[in-house]
Amino acid sequence: MMDHLTEKFIKSEVVFNGSLLTVRRDTVELPNGKPATRELVEHPGAVAVVPVRSDGKVLLVRQYRYPVGRLTLEIPAGKLDQGEKPEDCAKRELEEETGYQAGKLRRLSAVLTTPGFTNELIHLYVAEELVLKERHPDEDEFIDVEVFSPDEIRTMIENGALCDAKTLLGLLLAGL
Amino acid sequence: MMDHLTEKFIKSEVVFNGSLLTVRRDTVELPNGKPATRELVEHPGAVAVVPVRSDGKVLLVRQYRYPVGRLTLEIPAGKLDQGEKPEDCAKRELEEETGYQAGKLRRLSAVLTTPGFTNELIHLYVAEELVLKERHPDEDEFIDVEVFSPDEIRTMIENGALCDAKTLLGLLLAGL
Repeated sequence: MMDHLTEKFIKSEVVFNGSLLTVRRDTVELPNGKPATRELVEHPGAVAVVPVRSDGKVLLVRQYRYPVGRLTLEIPAGKLDQGEKPEDCAKRELEEETGYQAGKLRRLSAVLTTPGFTNELIHLYVAEELVLKERHPDEDEFIDVEVFSPDEIRTMIENGALCDAKTLLGLLLAGL
Repeated sequence: MMDHLTEKFIKSEVVFNGSLLTVRRDTVELPNGKPATRELVEHPGAVAVVPVRSDGKVLLVRQYRYPVGRLTLEIPAGKLDQGEKPEDCAKRELEEETGYQAGKLRRLSAVLTTPGFTNELIHLYVAEELVLKERHPDEDEFIDVEVFSPDEIRTMIENGALCDAKTLLGLLLAGL
């Protein structure tokens, strides 16, 4: 099925094995029988959570994103640990980054961030019935937690202050 | 400003220089003065276009995405050539992938796909007043063009048939 589009695996080579990224260069056979090279970043998968307080306000985290050289405002997110269920990861990352525990977690979707060069899949959730516990961010993780009304969120979507794809998608799919 | 969050550049090393990906391992100074390593994929930037025909139907492209090992349905998209303006790239990629020329291009937003490990920025547009010309996809690019009604698009957003982040964002921001 769809053989006129599908590429066949020939061989694989790890070209960079870092502490964050694993990069592969694979050889494939194109639908026309020709060989081609595919470079890709292996990713364990991630979660991102839209935390909505009982007063309707939304928590976002401000952090420095070195790859883009700037501070961003994003929904709390993080990578799956080995064998970790997305729901467990969502609760863990939310509490680590914001100090809030989620009484209720609602699944929104799972999205591919950039399928042209990575298999990263982000599971998106809304977290509700939030209870403030103690914040315990990862060591060497520097994050500010900020609180926004739905009106402020809408303004920041329109004026471009929010520009992280998973954050925009999470907020839009959550109906904000 | 925001010195308690910002990381300072110390040094940079290219660890993989492929035909598609350039991967760097940089050393930075954290806000607490400690050194840390940042691995990232350099990206030239990209565009993605929601093509809406005068009958209201939307064009999507079906293609095999090797990094995720499956076929996806996405809005037409592609990387910026060196020095290319996003608008020009949007028109070029739309015509290459679908055969349609855009009479009108409307900017939606520009989003970071996954700022944790790449600087990829995707400029999102809606293309209207489409005129069918000749398709001329890149050699060795295997793509089917398919046409969907707004109702079908909504169903595919809800049932997860669409799972590419830029595609979902483009469609939602375009009001579909």
